[in-house]
Amino acid sequence: MDLEEILKERAKIFDRALTGNLTSRDPEIFYDALRWIPLSGGKRLRPILAMLSCEAVGSVPEATIPFGIALEYLHNSTLIHDDIIDKDRWRRGLQTTHEKFGVPFAILAGDALIGETYRMLSYMAPPELKSVTYKEIIRSIADAAKNFYEGEALDVVFADRSDVTIPQYMIMIEKKTAQLYYLAGKGGALIGKGNRKQVENLAQYGTLFGLMFQIKDDLLNILTEQLILGKQMIGSDILNGKRTLMLIHALSEVHENDKNKMMSVVGNENANQQEVLEVINLFKKYGSIDYAQKKLEEFSEKAKSCLDIMDSSESKEILIALADYSVTRLY
Amino acid sequence: MDLEEILKERAKIFDRALTGNLTSRDPEIFYDALRWIPLSGGKRLRPILAMLSCEAVGSVPEATIPFGIALEYLHNSTLIHDDIIDKDRWRRGLQTTHEKFGVPFAILAGDALIGETYRMLSYMAPPELKSVTYKEIIRSIADAAKNFYEGEALDVVFADRSDVTIPQYMIMIEKKTAQLYYLAGKGGALIGKGNRKQVENLAQYGTLFGLMFQIKDDLLNILTEQLILGKQMIGSDILNGKRTLMLIHALSEVHENDKNKMMSVVGNENANQQEVLEVINLFKKYGSIDYAQKKLEEFSEKAKSCLDIMDSSESKEILIALADYSVTRLY
Repeated sequence: MDLEEILKERAKIFDRALTGNLTSRDPEIFYDALRWIPLSGGKRLRPILAMLSCEAVGSVPEATIPFGIALEYLHNSTLIHDDIIDKDRWRRGLQTTHEKFGVPFAILAGDALIGETYRMLSYMAPPELKSVTYKEIIRSIADAAKNFYEGEALDVVFADRSDVTIPQYMIMIEKKTAQLYYLAGKGGALIGKGNRKQVENLAQYGTLFGLMFQIKDDLLNILTEQLILGKQMIGSDILNGKRTLMLIHALSEVHENDKNKMMSVVGNENANQQEVLEVINLFKKYGSIDYAQKKLEEFSEKAKSCLDIMDSSESKEILIALADYSVTRLY
Repeated sequence: MDLEEILKERAKIFDRALTGNLTSRDPEIFYDALRWIPLSGGKRLRPILAMLSCEAVGSVPEATIPFGIALEYLHNSTLIHDDIIDKDRWRRGLQTTHEKFGVPFAILAGDALIGETYRMLSYMAPPELKSVTYKEIIRSIADAAKNFYEGEALDVVFADRSDVTIPQYMIMIEKKTAQLYYLAGKGGALIGKGNRKQVENLAQYGTLFGLMFQIKDDLLNILTEQLILGKQMIGSDILNGKRTLMLIHALSEVHENDKNKMMSVVGNENANQQEVLEVINLFKKYGSIDYAQKKLEEFSEKAKSCLDIMDSSESKEILIALADYSVTRLY
């Protein structure tokens, strides 16, 4: 199975739908700001996961298109506002929305995309869904959004603290990163008319997939070189002071003198590559990289076991492959 | 009829419901930011209008409570984000959310309130509403939100232009200010199971009420003294450079030398009270205050005629009184 090819093909379905839906009205600059990030690419993993979940419970994939687009709108609204909050200047190789259009239009663009999320849901045809299921989807999406904002708020609060525990950190990324994947699995299964147990398991698969995605991204950041502002480098998360599972783990294990060394580099944008490598060596010394790698493998096995109750199908195979890929991917 | 007393009594219903709904979770600072503006008072005119519309088509008021709360959430989210955009420091005599809690929490608080809007709607019990009506309400609220953001974006665009025409200005305030009142009238009538014509007329009543509200507020700003940052003054809108119907009208009529005089004061925060009064005299000279006053009276008559098709009821009487009050109120 060529998983990457399958993902690309599926992503195109949502690329097309997004381009068709985000047409311009007056004032043009506002709609330019609105479209900037949603149409700048992205892997469309959330809608793809919703679609696969719908198929895994035996339903047709087309039914999830409005829901999948809604997920992308919500996700993109969080990216646009997150970039304002983090004062980030670049995303997907482009200027962030507030850098290009200014903070007022970026705030309004994010707000409007949240509204579009729910508007899109109102296009799910009534015969497809019972009224009760429809309300459950609306409530699930709003609950997930609430959890997401809580997670983001926790992230802001944690940024000033060095005593965050691993359980606190896991709650934060479950809310901030995994929530929309949870919703994708749950919503796809609900739309596909899965039974309670199937809905629950696909929701849990989504959560685990989201957690893996975050941990793997953070591992790749310190294990492989990336091109950042024209320089090949490793560990940009360390320079940016980003809280990661490895950092939280290391902080809970580290001796006092190593801790001072570590914290003089973490979040210090002027630190050089050698100093970053020393922090990564401390992560290794305290077993933090192994710890994250083990969590990843544990989550992957758990995610696959969530699929045990599903009948055999192509979509089930793809979901299993995705859980493996989350551990093995190299970029 | 003691209209002000009636409005106060109705507002209390929504005050209580809002306080009960906005309970705190972790992290507390985020929920403090979320509650700051919604629980700081406000007249709750949008939910009151929804409730009156529901009653005017012969239904019980209680059915509109979740919808009314949803309207307040959406309205308050726009206030919080609008204050960031306009860099306003005070609202309802308190610091604005971003002043008190910082921009990141203010952005997240506004986003979360948009989500709460739709979550609240999912609490409308299924037997009360047909699935089709429910979807129409979701779509109406999302459409209204979209129009609102467009209006806000137009306002940002217009701020740098002195050639805005009266029709362009009216479109902007219809979107930015009247949209949620339109939605209140429409949604209340839909929930009350009004017929198509009733829904349409109460929606139009809402639009006109919103326009009146804006124009009257702007008139009061230049005709009566207000306590602003400890000083009794008149015409703070002129100092702030706010686009109002009077200013747009005057700009379209004014002679070149008066225009320069006017524009040297409009938006100049260091201008003194005497200079502001001279601008108000120019508004009088060019008939701009009369023009706004006439519009107000015209809208009030139109709004009342929207009610002709409703059966006699106490709520109809209150709606008529509200249309009169929009012209005559002194604060």
